[in-house]
Amino acid sequence: MSPQHTEFVKRNEQYVANFGNKGDLAMPPAKKLIIVTCMDARLDPAAHLGIKEGDAHIIRNAGGMVKDELRSIIISQRLLGTREVAIFHHTDCGMLTFASDDVRSIVKDAAKGDAVVAAKVDAIDFLPFKDLEGSVKADVAWLKNEPLVLPETTITGWVYDVKSGKVSQVV
Amino acid sequence: MSPQHTEFVKRNEQYVANFGNKGDLAMPPAKKLIIVTCMDARLDPAAHLGIKEGDAHIIRNAGGMVKDELRSIIISQRLLGTREVAIFHHTDCGMLTFASDDVRSIVKDAAKGDAVVAAKVDAIDFLPFKDLEGSVKADVAWLKNEPLVLPETTITGWVYDVKSGKVSQVV
Repeated sequence: MSPQHTEFVKRNEQYVANFGNKGDLAMPPAKKLIIVTCMDARLDPAAHLGIKEGDAHIIRNAGGMVKDELRSIIISQRLLGTREVAIFHHTDCGMLTFASDDVRSIVKDAAKGDAVVAAKVDAIDFLPFKDLEGSVKADVAWLKNEPLVLPETTITGWVYDVKSGKVSQVV
Repeated sequence: MSPQHTEFVKRNEQYVANFGNKGDLAMPPAKKLIIVTCMDARLDPAAHLGIKEGDAHIIRNAGGMVKDELRSIIISQRLLGTREVAIFHHTDCGMLTFASDDVRSIVKDAAKGDAVVAAKVDAIDFLPFKDLEGSVKADVAWLKNEPLVLPETTITGWVYDVKSGKVSQVV
C-alpha cells in the first residue's frame, strides 16, 4: 500500500468514527438536485454550497461540461427523481488555457507516431472554452434543448470564483 | 431566485467568510491524484478520504465509471501532471438495480413514441453492473489497457460502504 493509500485509510478511519446515522440516508437525493461542476482540485462543492450527504447528486469532470454526462443525468432524473440541475464553471479554469489540438499534439508526440493513439485522440473533442460566462450559458442552453432531459427541469448556471470562494448566478 | 438558490448563496457566504488563503492554491493537484467516484448523494469523497482543496482532481458520474471520463483523465494527466487514479464504486449503488433497457423503456414511454428520443436513448449504454467488486476490477483493467492513459499511471480500485462510511481497497 503506497503512502497515499495509507493516508486514505487513516483519514477514512476518522470519518467512520464520526459517521453517526448517515448509514440511514436514502439513495434518492433529498433536494431532488444535481450539481454539475469541474473536477478542479481547488473546488469542494459540498463545502462551498453547504451540500450535506444525502442532499444532491454531484457530477464532476474537466470543466463541468454537461455534454459528457447525459447518461448520468438521465439516470438521476428517471430512476432517482431529481428535477433540478445547477451547472457551475469557475474562474482560472484549465479549460480556458488550451485548444483541443494542443492536447492532441501532446498525446501524439508522447506516443511517437502510434497510429491507433493518433486516430483515437483526434476523435476526442476536449471541450475547451474561451469565455467563462459564455460557456455556462452554452451548457444551460444545451441541456434545455436536449430531448432526453425532462422538460420540467429547472436549469441554472453559475460561476465559482477560485480567488474568493464566492458563487454567482449567471443564468 | 428559488429557495434552493437562496440557500446556496447563504451557505456560500459562510464558506467565503472562512476562505482563508485558499485563493493562493495552484491549479495542478498537489497530490498528482485523480479520484473517480459515483455522483451518489450519500458520498462526500473530500470528507471520507480527507481530501483538501488543492489536493486532487475529483471526477464523479453515475457509478463512478471511467469509460465516460477519458477526456477528463487525459486533460488531468497531460496538462496538469496527475500520475495516479483511484477508482471508487460503492455499496447500494443505483447502478446495481437496473438494466439499460429499463431506463430506455422509461424514457421512451414518457416520450410517447417520439422517434428521435427513441433512437437517441437506444444508443446510450447506461453502464449498469451486477457485481460491485467486479465492476471496480473491470474499470481498473479498462483504464490500464487504454492507450491514451500514461503507462506509468498508478491505478487502484476501492469500494466505499454507504452503511459504515468505510473504504476498502479491492485492487
